[in-house]
Amino acid sequence: MTERSSRVVVARKLTRRAGRDRAGEFLAEGSQAVGEALAAHTAGRVRVRSLFATEEQAAKLTDAGVPVHVVTDRAAASLSETVTPQGLVAQCELPATTPAEALASRPPLVAVLLGVADPGNAGTVVRVADAAGAGAVLFAGDTVDPYNGKAVRASTGSLFHLPVARDRDALAVLAACREAGLRLVGADGYASDDLDSASVRGELAGPTAWVFGSEAHGLPEDVLAELDATLRVPIYGGAESLNLATAAAVCLYASARAQRHHG
Amino acid sequence: MTERSSRVVVARKLTRRAGRDRAGEFLAEGSQAVGEALAAHTAGRVRVRSLFATEEQAAKLTDAGVPVHVVTDRAAASLSETVTPQGLVAQCELPATTPAEALASRPPLVAVLLGVADPGNAGTVVRVADAAGAGAVLFAGDTVDPYNGKAVRASTGSLFHLPVARDRDALAVLAACREAGLRLVGADGYASDDLDSASVRGELAGPTAWVFGSEAHGLPEDVLAELDATLRVPIYGGAESLNLATAAAVCLYASARAQRHHG
Repeated sequence: MTERSSRVVVARKLTRRAGRDRAGEFLAEGSQAVGEALAAHTAGRVRVRSLFATEEQAAKLTDAGVPVHVVTDRAAASLSETVTPQGLVAQCELPATTPAEALASRPPLVAVLLGVADPGNAGTVVRVADAAGAGAVLFAGDTVDPYNGKAVRASTGSLFHLPVARDRDALAVLAACREAGLRLVGADGYASDDLDSASVRGELAGPTAWVFGSEAHGLPEDVLAELDATLRVPIYGGAESLNLATAAAVCLYASARAQRHHG
Repeated sequence: MTERSSRVVVARKLTRRAGRDRAGEFLAEGSQAVGEALAAHTAGRVRVRSLFATEEQAAKLTDAGVPVHVVTDRAAASLSETVTPQGLVAQCELPATTPAEALASRPPLVAVLLGVADPGNAGTVVRVADAAGAGAVLFAGDTVDPYNGKAVRASTGSLFHLPVARDRDALAVLAACREAGLRLVGADGYASDDLDSASVRGELAGPTAWVFGSEAHGLPEDVLAELDATLRVPIYGGAESLNLATAAAVCLYASARAQRHHG
């Protein structure tokens, strides 16, 4: 199958958000992500529609009950968003999970991304949330699409581990969190109260939704007004700030620890 | 001044490690990094030899007692390692700090990078270490050069805030840390003991040098044998691991908190 084959042409549209939303599908690229997609498929969490693989990659695949399309290197590269395509891409169904559904099991730790612009950052936060044991990640407002190729890759499979839901209505996402019994805590570099003090006071031991804002502008006023608290990661040295992923790691792990060791 | 001017040609050699080591100089690019370099210059911590600025950037500069070379957009781009050059580059003296000198003030928190390959990761760890209040960052073994353009940029100025020293002899760096009264703790995804448990037991309250290994291979055996402890960041969910920068953030902040709140 070449890059001009209709299947490849159709799949290539999934490298753009409009194409993903229209088709209700997305792409996961590389052996690690595809392996995780297939595991989620087997577990019934995600449906993998088909695989595109170069001959070399197809030879390594074990039968997963999913159609495999053998493609040229060039066709595989046309579906890739990396500099060095691995020649293996899964075409997956977009999960239609709503925030309320993602929170149905009432997880005690949740991450909300609200206005995050960079797909690599968003994917890394999904990975960190998964590592810290969060039960869901919610993409709210005009946050980048979690199914963007770079976001999928940065999540290193975590996108397939826990429920991820999108809703452009940011306040509806916050309401769903509250409905699920979560305390809404915003990460805000300008907050007067800091994470370590809140942790020592035992305020992180309960069910918590951490809300992370845009890399450039933080959280907007109307969102801040809805939160139960805002906390900053304390800066003990000369740095102006942390980047989004490292700040999220410190916040989510502070909650994970508090819920297990003081909760 | 064009990209063919000898000053620009000489400065361009600093975009490569061999060129930096030969000349004893490095480049810092963009208004944020240049601003921090000039502040460090004024404070006597780093010497800025000269600035290269496009006309537009030169117009915005206030006199900092440093020669300014006005260059064409193309010349500025030739000194840049970014996709969208900002037209402002500082040529700085490489600090000749040794690990022992960097530790002379006996800081209670230090980060050691040992075999870290990606300059963006290395720079981000410098930023995180600065934020967490570390007193020095040591680049040991065949870790990427901290003065690599991408590392300088990822550090967002933190490279100019705290002593950074390099030594290819990794064991000598560990010995210098021990000499400075630091407990050597390695971050190791395979360690049997975890960070949160060690924190609860109060083991992070004392002076600590955190040792971070290669993204792909972690810490080598001969280094592990020298350490007082190894700890893993606990993975509570389905993720296989954290990336280097987020793991370093969690570790360094755990120490920062323990030293302040339980120490």
